[in-house]
Amino acid sequence: MAKILKINHIAIAVNDLESPLSFWQDKLGLSIEHTENVPSEKTEVAFLPVSESEIELIHPTDDSTGLAKYLDKKGPGIHHICFEVDNLIEMMSELKEKGVRLLSDEPRIAAGGNQMCFIHPKDAGGVLIELYEVK
Amino acid sequence: MAKILKINHIAIAVNDLESPLSFWQDKLGLSIEHTENVPSEKTEVAFLPVSESEIELIHPTDDSTGLAKYLDKKGPGIHHICFEVDNLIEMMSELKEKGVRLLSDEPRIAAGGNQMCFIHPKDAGGVLIELYEVK
Repeated sequence: MAKILKINHIAIAVNDLESPLSFWQDKLGLSIEHTENVPSEKTEVAFLPVSESEIELIHPTDDSTGLAKYLDKKGPGIHHICFEVDNLIEMMSELKEKGVRLLSDEPRIAAGGNQMCFIHPKDAGGVLIELYEVK
Repeated sequence: MAKILKINHIAIAVNDLESPLSFWQDKLGLSIEHTENVPSEKTEVAFLPVSESEIELIHPTDDSTGLAKYLDKKGPGIHHICFEVDNLIEMMSELKEKGVRLLSDEPRIAAGGNQMCFIHPKDAGGVLIELYEVK
């Protein structure tokens, strides 16, 4: 059975990558490690490590994405949580067998070029959960 | 300067502690470690460890709490994230000096009897952040 290894990141939806840093860096004391453009997800991401996990500030680069619509509707805030798993394909298959809906049939490409999928929030108690495997 | 040590937990607002376990335990494979009643916060909490962090399922035991109102308005979902800090009093004082509003002037008692405070979500990019010190 595939296993969750740790919280990989908590993703915070932001209106831009610059202005939130006055809180997360200057006031809370976290440090931005790098930023990355993720064309497959049409987002740009700022990574702020916290021990074995990260806070990711995510901003849509295209108005048509789910993230852009989320920001329009709900404003900035926690968007999703991401668990790192030991075997993504196995985890996806096991969840489907148990009747849990995923947002894609196949893994998608995440930041860093690794593979991920999302669980349908209606099957996860209202929480958008990303599953992520580091290759 | 006080420092963030790790993500202590991610708190998920739930309508009861039992039914969400069919997802978090049976489908996702996490295990409930214990449950706790936290009278000071008028919540009951189920703790599901994930490596150095936890998922906490939180349910209000009183309809007057902020958590009960949150559930009424938004339904179940991610309620807050909690960072463990090395020195809570120092962190609270530094944040106040930098103009960040806290939800209480003094530390409050959290699950486990440890001290915590919340940062005002309007000063934290729409995110409700708990700061927590393990004594």
